[in-house]
Amino acid sequence: MFTSETKIRVRYAETDQMNVVYYGNYAQYFEVARAEAIRELGLTYKEMEEMGIIMPVVEMHTKYLRSARYDDLITIKTELRELPADHRIEFHHEVYNEEDKLITIGRVVLYFLDAKTFARSKMPEMLYLKLSPFFQTNA
Amino acid sequence: MFTSETKIRVRYAETDQMNVVYYGNYAQYFEVARAEAIRELGLTYKEMEEMGIIMPVVEMHTKYLRSARYDDLITIKTELRELPADHRIEFHHEVYNEEDKLITIGRVVLYFLDAKTFARSKMPEMLYLKLSPFFQTNA
Amino acid sequence: MFTSETKIRVRYAETDQMNVVYYGNYAQYFEVARAEAIRELGLTYKEMEEMGIIMPVVEMHTKYLRSARYDDLITIKTELRELPADHRIEFHHEVYNEEDKLITIGRVVLYFLDAKTFARSKMPEMLYLKLSPFFQTNA
Amino acid sequence: MFTSETKIRVRYAETDQMNVVYYGNYAQYFEVARAEAIRELGLTYKEMEEMGIIMPVVEMHTKYLRSARYDDLITIKTELRELPADHRIEFHHEVYNEEDKLITIGRVVLYFLDAKTFARSKMPEMLYLKLSPFFQTNA
Repeated sequence: MFTSETKIRVRYAETDQMNVVYYGNYAQYFEVARAEAIRELGLTYKEMEEMGIIMPVVEMHTKYLRSARYDDLITIKTELRELPADHRIEFHHEVYNEEDKLITIGRVVLYFLDAKTFARSKMPEMLYLKLSPFFQTNA
Repeated sequence: MFTSETKIRVRYAETDQMNVVYYGNYAQYFEVARAEAIRELGLTYKEMEEMGIIMPVVEMHTKYLRSARYDDLITIKTELRELPADHRIEFHHEVYNEEDKLITIGRVVLYFLDAKTFARSKMPEMLYLKLSPFFQTNA
Repeated sequence: MFTSETKIRVRYAETDQMNVVYYGNYAQYFEVARAEAIRELGLTYKEMEEMGIIMPVVEMHTKYLRSARYDDLITIKTELRELPADHRIEFHHEVYNEEDKLITIGRVVLYFLDAKTFARSKMPEMLYLKLSPFFQTNA
Repeated sequence: MFTSETKIRVRYAETDQMNVVYYGNYAQYFEVARAEAIRELGLTYKEMEEMGIIMPVVEMHTKYLRSARYDDLITIKTELRELPADHRIEFHHEVYNEEDKLITIGRVVLYFLDAKTFARSKMPEMLYLKLSPFFQTNA
């Protein structure tokens, strides 16, 4: 399993008149968490796009347990529970507030696609090499 | 079953550099669709908040099948498949593009809460009276 | 002078915890107003991009006089006070609430650029032909 | 003069199909830069709201010179050029990309208002005490 952790400070723009983070803004937090998880592996999503691979989101599932509030420094824990074997990759996210309470759970599925043809593709070899050590059963 | 239909024109702001609507922005489209569905029943969500009932989202599930693009006039079909019996209400959304292709499927669960105590509440009586005729089995 | 009017319903997502529309969201309202103004002339901004002309914003000035609130149906009055003679075009916007009170004033300057070379360009001929009748002094 | 510097990583959500940061999103960057400038003074904007002072934006002026792009780590330099003497405060922002090129210039004017009455107010005493040393001519 590969895990990663990212912190984000909640912006005023992200709140709504219920005085909490608008439910739609967690998609951005998950995006940042994914990007930082990939960056920790020594690659960036930006570089992947430059290499001709795009990663559109095909599924997102979110459960909202508690609220995040303006200026909260939230922590997003991200997990890859399986090493992608084909064009599909799945990220699990848990968002915690400063009191370490779980506030949101997210699951986001993305595909690796060829940026030109939109054909299903595989994970870039370099990313595979970086990730596979985290999934070796006898390591 | 209660159904409703809403059209939204995609804004430039809502696209990203993949030339499609950013995946996180569908939450806003679902919000607009919910609000218009309630408005059709003769009430507004704004009035509900003024009556002391808030409706936070507790779950959202989205499947992205095709892309929406800048300036597309998308149609969001919204269904209430069950008459809420307690604090929980569930909206089903399907988003169609101008060629009538299904592009996104959404399911959003919200709670009725008392705006002051945050205690679970029931649907406002007025909304119940408007909705129940759509769910009468022998009507 | 060319004038145009557009209505937008304020989304919950666009409010912040001050219970009003977040100041940064007016840029989107101006964008919609510009797009609708151009559409009224028989062209769309989308078509302009397909013709190879992009219109990046180079300046925006906004004065916030009153607040817009959730579910308000605001009216944006848009004016072109001068017929663009070169690569520069300037839109003047006034945003009104449902009581017809002026809530925001905006001025947005954009350039016509070649989408490939980013060289300064002129207004598409077709747009010029549509616009010029509005600026004939003896008409 | 009081100056402050803040770094922000551009999110995918903040780009548009022109492959650059959408012009409306700089308002959020300025917001973050203001909040961080105030935090450096030993107070937070959140605490100010809890003390009963809100700071709505009354004016924003932006010039866009170059583009920011996805994943850029931009630097926002913020200046208070004058010590506020009444209800008005003015922030000057310059946004730089990683090559230290100036990409955007912003000027944002805000008012100090009483959160309950919306009457014009003064800067909180504590903030004044923190700020005034930066503006002493003979210091």
